[in-house]
Amino acid sequence: MDLESLTNTSGEWLRANGPESDIVISCRVRLARNLAQFPFPNKASDSVLDEIETCLHDTISKSTIGKPLSYFKVNDLDELDRQFLVERQLISREHSQGLGSRSVSVSEEENISLMVNEEDHLRIQVLHSGFALKDCWNEIDQLDDAIEEHVTYAFSEKFGYLTSCPTNVGTGIRVSVMLHLPALVITKEIQKVFQALQKINLAVRGLYGEGSQAMGDFYQISNQSTLGESEEKIINNIEEVVPRIIEYERRARVALLEENKQNLHDQISRAYGILQNAQTISSEETMHLLSSVRMGINLGLIDDLKIPTVNELFIHTQPAHLQKIQKEKLDTGERNTSRAAYLRKRLNNGTDHSQN
Amino acid sequence: MDLESLTNTSGEWLRANGPESDIVISCRVRLARNLAQFPFPNKASDSVLDEIETCLHDTISKSTIGKPLSYFKVNDLDELDRQFLVERQLISREHSQGLGSRSVSVSEEENISLMVNEEDHLRIQVLHSGFALKDCWNEIDQLDDAIEEHVTYAFSEKFGYLTSCPTNVGTGIRVSVMLHLPALVITKEIQKVFQALQKINLAVRGLYGEGSQAMGDFYQISNQSTLGESEEKIINNIEEVVPRIIEYERRARVALLEENKQNLHDQISRAYGILQNAQTISSEETMHLLSSVRMGINLGLIDDLKIPTVNELFIHTQPAHLQKIQKEKLDTGERNTSRAAYLRKRLNNGTDHSQN
Repeated sequence: MDLESLTNTSGEWLRANGPESDIVISCRVRLARNLAQFPFPNKASDSVLDEIETCLHDTISKSTIGKPLSYFKVNDLDELDRQFLVERQLISREHSQGLGSRSVSVSEEENISLMVNEEDHLRIQVLHSGFALKDCWNEIDQLDDAIEEHVTYAFSEKFGYLTSCPTNVGTGIRVSVMLHLPALVITKEIQKVFQALQKINLAVRGLYGEGSQAMGDFYQISNQSTLGESEEKIINNIEEVVPRIIEYERRARVALLEENKQNLHDQISRAYGILQNAQTISSEETMHLLSSVRMGINLGLIDDLKIPTVNELFIHTQPAHLQKIQKEKLDTGERNTSRAAYLRKRLNNGTDHSQN
Repeated sequence: MDLESLTNTSGEWLRANGPESDIVISCRVRLARNLAQFPFPNKASDSVLDEIETCLHDTISKSTIGKPLSYFKVNDLDELDRQFLVERQLISREHSQGLGSRSVSVSEEENISLMVNEEDHLRIQVLHSGFALKDCWNEIDQLDDAIEEHVTYAFSEKFGYLTSCPTNVGTGIRVSVMLHLPALVITKEIQKVFQALQKINLAVRGLYGEGSQAMGDFYQISNQSTLGESEEKIINNIEEVVPRIIEYERRARVALLEENKQNLHDQISRAYGILQNAQTISSEETMHLLSSVRMGINLGLIDDLKIPTVNELFIHTQPAHLQKIQKEKLDTGERNTSRAAYLRKRLNNGTDHSQN
């Protein structure tokens, strides 16, 4: 698998075939791990970073995880390719902008990614479509064990796994669920949900992680604390709260339909019409309109389009994806034109020929 | 011809087959005439209005004008039918809301209409598509002569034709040209055009005459004075000024294309997309969006739609037309839904099957 071939597909997490995938886009578990014999990346010299990278690349290659992995040397990629990997959720923004020798290994279906020399020596991530946290956990737990057979992790009997940033010490786990909550945004109940989540120590972020805005009504809910609780407890905590948020969103959708179906239908249809006809469109407006269309499909108000196509369009209309698809560098204005042309092409077939 | 059959057609003036019809929707000449032996309508009793109506109906019936006329007793029509005739420009708003015995006779192609007991005993109107004032004048002049063979008009050697309102005394003529000026509106040059027209004593009004707002970027230019100048002079005056306005509008369109074709194309395409997809839409928004689409067709930016269809949609989406087409009374909310459904039906055939 090379980077170019990825432009024709979309990751497993966008396939919308998991449980509750009308509202839960994807769920993700990631583990932060460090090798005992090396300093943390932010304290390591360039040559030590090289050494860590070589060591972990070897280890990953020989760990039997049952799936072939593609390997990308992130520091050798140009900015566009790095941004492309960020948009696909295969590397973090921090990893794309980091310094020194660093890499990512990605499974064919893009649901496994292993970042080397991000904030920690190793960040293992498993993503699944829909609400399937247990699947993520089982997979990542095996992966973690397979790697640990070959290396010694930095581990303290008292604290657990040691990490570069204290917030990850302990289990080193971050569990997150990406939710599409357009109705709660329209009814303005979303703030109440956030407040409730913060009280139980869960964080809410936008599509592209910390500090990113919640574009397209996508919200990522994740655990804040990694210390003092088992991985299972942390996962269970989120597994219990997500169905309640799903229930709130479903109720808000029903309420919107009951109160004024026509206005909701109008808003959704106009969004679809603009996406099918615009000649220039920003990424932000695209996300906003696709969010309406996505809810419209789920409510049965749009019937000639499928959710996986919409999920894919969210990613394919991102700046780096557009440029990879067009195979040329584009400035903001050119991207807006290119994005509009791409949307027209994908949405004006009459019937939806989903690429998935 | 009955009123119902009109719902399936559109008037001659919407056919967009006249000269300069990309910008000039239609031109119109009307003559105000009164019978010498009767008081003006506002001074006439109900029984006298009856007498006038009978007399003029007889006269119109026997005047050889070479075209069959349909006769509608306006005071016998319900409010919806009267509004329907206003929307088709066959009667004035004043005529629809008047009191006492009054009528209108209409030619099959709807380019001739004769109102009896509007402000004056007789108002003759001839409408043509595009910029064809001379055709209007020749036709109305013959019509006027044919009627005058049977009646004696109120006429003063000193003042000319006498009319109910002093502003019409003299020739009794009003010459008007309906222009579609979207580019001058966008470039904000329209005010300069208005000021120039007012200086040469021409009035500017919206689509539905005096006091009506210029919806859909339609402007009606007409003479103010009817006294002291011959009909030919008045017509020539307007015939000279209109090509200059056309030229301004064309230049504004070219300038918009040169400055930012993409934004203009975007605005036009989005307007088309909204019209094709909205589930509820007001008359005002419809006019505004159709105006963009109409300009888009003329600029070659929309190629699957024809001007006569757009002209027709301007009229068919008016409140009374919608209700006549749906064959039921509809309140504002119902009209907005019905209008959106009608627009979707007419605009989503893929190819334009114009009714004309």
